[in-house]
Amino acid sequence: MPLVVQKYGGSSLADAASIKRVARRIGETKKAGNDVVVAVSAMGDTTDELLDLAQDVSPLPPARELDMLMTAGERISMALVAMAISDLGFTARSFTGSQAGVITDAVHGKAKIIDVTPGRITKALGDNHIVIVAGFQGVSQDTKEITTLGRGGTDTTAVALAAALGADVCEIYTDVDGVFTADPRIVPAARKISRISNEEMLELAAAGSKVLHLRSVEYARRFDIPIHVRSSFSDKEGTIVTDKPAPEGAAVEAPIIAGVAHDRSEAKITVVGVPDRTGKAAELFEAVAAAQINIDMIVQNVSATETGLTDISFTLPRADGVTAMQALQRIQDSVGFAALLYDDQIGKLSLVGAGMRSNPGVSATFFKALADAGVNIEMISTSEIRISVVTREERLDEAVRAVHTAFGLDSDSPEAVVYAGTGR
Amino acid sequence: MPLVVQKYGGSSLADAASIKRVARRIGETKKAGNDVVVAVSAMGDTTDELLDLAQDVSPLPPARELDMLMTAGERISMALVAMAISDLGFTARSFTGSQAGVITDAVHGKAKIIDVTPGRITKALGDNHIVIVAGFQGVSQDTKEITTLGRGGTDTTAVALAAALGADVCEIYTDVDGVFTADPRIVPAARKISRISNEEMLELAAAGSKVLHLRSVEYARRFDIPIHVRSSFSDKEGTIVTDKPAPEGAAVEAPIIAGVAHDRSEAKITVVGVPDRTGKAAELFEAVAAAQINIDMIVQNVSATETGLTDISFTLPRADGVTAMQALQRIQDSVGFAALLYDDQIGKLSLVGAGMRSNPGVSATFFKALADAGVNIEMISTSEIRISVVTREERLDEAVRAVHTAFGLDSDSPEAVVYAGTGR
Repeated sequence: MPLVVQKYGGSSLADAASIKRVARRIGETKKAGNDVVVAVSAMGDTTDELLDLAQDVSPLPPARELDMLMTAGERISMALVAMAISDLGFTARSFTGSQAGVITDAVHGKAKIIDVTPGRITKALGDNHIVIVAGFQGVSQDTKEITTLGRGGTDTTAVALAAALGADVCEIYTDVDGVFTADPRIVPAARKISRISNEEMLELAAAGSKVLHLRSVEYARRFDIPIHVRSSFSDKEGTIVTDKPAPEGAAVEAPIIAGVAHDRSEAKITVVGVPDRTGKAAELFEAVAAAQINIDMIVQNVSATETGLTDISFTLPRADGVTAMQALQRIQDSVGFAALLYDDQIGKLSLVGAGMRSNPGVSATFFKALADAGVNIEMISTSEIRISVVTREERLDEAVRAVHTAFGLDSDSPEAVVYAGTGR
Repeated sequence: MPLVVQKYGGSSLADAASIKRVARRIGETKKAGNDVVVAVSAMGDTTDELLDLAQDVSPLPPARELDMLMTAGERISMALVAMAISDLGFTARSFTGSQAGVITDAVHGKAKIIDVTPGRITKALGDNHIVIVAGFQGVSQDTKEITTLGRGGTDTTAVALAAALGADVCEIYTDVDGVFTADPRIVPAARKISRISNEEMLELAAAGSKVLHLRSVEYARRFDIPIHVRSSFSDKEGTIVTDKPAPEGAAVEAPIIAGVAHDRSEAKITVVGVPDRTGKAAELFEAVAAAQINIDMIVQNVSATETGLTDISFTLPRADGVTAMQALQRIQDSVGFAALLYDDQIGKLSLVGAGMRSNPGVSATFFKALADAGVNIEMISTSEIRISVVTREERLDEAVRAVHTAFGLDSDSPEAVVYAGTGR
């Protein structure tokens, strides 16, 4: 029997009526002849309400207890979804992350999945039950503590379950119709992408596209699980994320550019006057890494040989800004830099497309579009299939629209050309 | 180091301010040189809110999923209490029922504790942590399913933990000052009892006194754990439930009567025209027992020999009324009774006191008080230290007040005599 793993986010589980609607969709999938495993997030605003409660009680709650608190959210939604399913005449069994065998490391608040041992799920499927699993949570391997996976964790739970169970597809239900060429709230002419490679999806997610969480795409690629991103509010086909060739007869859609992503969640730290000697940059980034902070772009300016000093800038999540500044301040004397600057008024724009590799004109078109729009570029970084730039935050939306139009991605654009045979 | 187990109910944990107040009390107990383990209920109205959610989603939710849902309530409160404690400079670790080793049978909604294996608690105490445990919940022995203990379950959790850990005392914090000679809302002149035996407390709890849950008292008696019932809103001494002699120098308070309890949660079923043959009554009560329903009082009238038929009445929780009626209806033909009557307009009044044994005048005073108040008695049952009667529900309050006064229990009564040497 085919096995389908589905994920429903909080916006699809906002209230009793939404939960019943989700239950009907799950029931239909079961009725169509599939085994069904469902990962759920907390209902609507539950996570925020629990965070508010924690804030009311303690300004700096211990991470272990915060995880204990937050995991109550999915526990509530999974039990309610199971109840709604049983009302439709199916039987359902809900399992916490721990019961479902989601084994993680011990980093509270952003634990990584180490292993999935889904013995209880397999048993329940064997008994013909629909299985509901609490997303976003697991249990640490050695200490058996309850952990949470961090933002977007339920996507990761769903894909990890799909991988461990050998599912045929992992359906990620959300409140949008799929992955778009840009955020439709900023670019109303953005188009839905019907099929996208794992590599491009990874770059889009890393560049700030919120539809899928980066880790879930990495997981899906590693285990070769096709993801279907679609809306829980309609029956429309969404976006298939896969490296498999499109089915026979389907339009071979292979545009140079997959989409334009943006990110306003980052800040920039500049370390001024770093002694230009081997190992000094390493000391800086080791201090930041030791604080469990992921950095994104790094720029070092050309050394001014007469002073023997250089400046190093990097971007990081704004949420980690204070921690990073404190960590760097502690090593100021030992490293011997002059000062730290902090800037959280930046925005990042990324152009992603596998066709970039074989189309040398892409960078030129990209920078011309930004120049024509009068957007100043502060940092640049590139991968094989991505160009990212940092701009002032207030110019970001305008920059996104300019680039989207320049690459003919607008739905009403005559230039919305689809190339064939560019390696997709 | 002395070990104190404390229990805080939902009314003591209504909001962030209450939780901080409870945390301070816990901190003071720790600071006074005790190891502290705390069992908590769900915050204020959480349980009702979760039940409402379940009702919105499903008219008849599966018991397994309902337990999964309800246990989210204590998970939230225990994490918040742990956070508030850590804000005071102590370290706290919260544990779910399952993590705390509360092993139960598999009866969802009213599971019984089979064993407590508090390895993680002992370890945490050894590391000098304050331990917070989710009350009301456990994990089933064989199936590892999440269970709940039913009404008042957190009292039982607290006492079971106290027993398993060899605690010196189990403090049950509530919103009243202790156990009273009657419900002060009905008898404003009711007095707080400073010391009461397990046996009397058991009878009061079984007779409807809501302050302590029956099972927790049974548990405390079996393992010889002193319970201290007191208010979380004041520092007053409450009621000590113990069979140990009062400390040297304390007033030897030994009244004949401990108190008057009432219960308006029961209903009466009368089985009319039961064939008066051996085994017929057993068939009735086996059917009710098979439906997992506890019955309380039973009355069978004198057989009318000319008809060979008799009537049997019994009381049971109103909440089980429909289930019991259905179970009995199913065996009507095989047992051969004539009809079933259902009455949920009854009230039960109980007089409890260890001194009853050696004071033969108690029954006479009791029935005279009810007769003088014009209260009609419908059923009677007695134990060694208790007399219970069933009356019309609307006459119950009046009956309680009459009996309370007749036995000199009113706080302003000159007859509030305290006898010495009556076996306490």
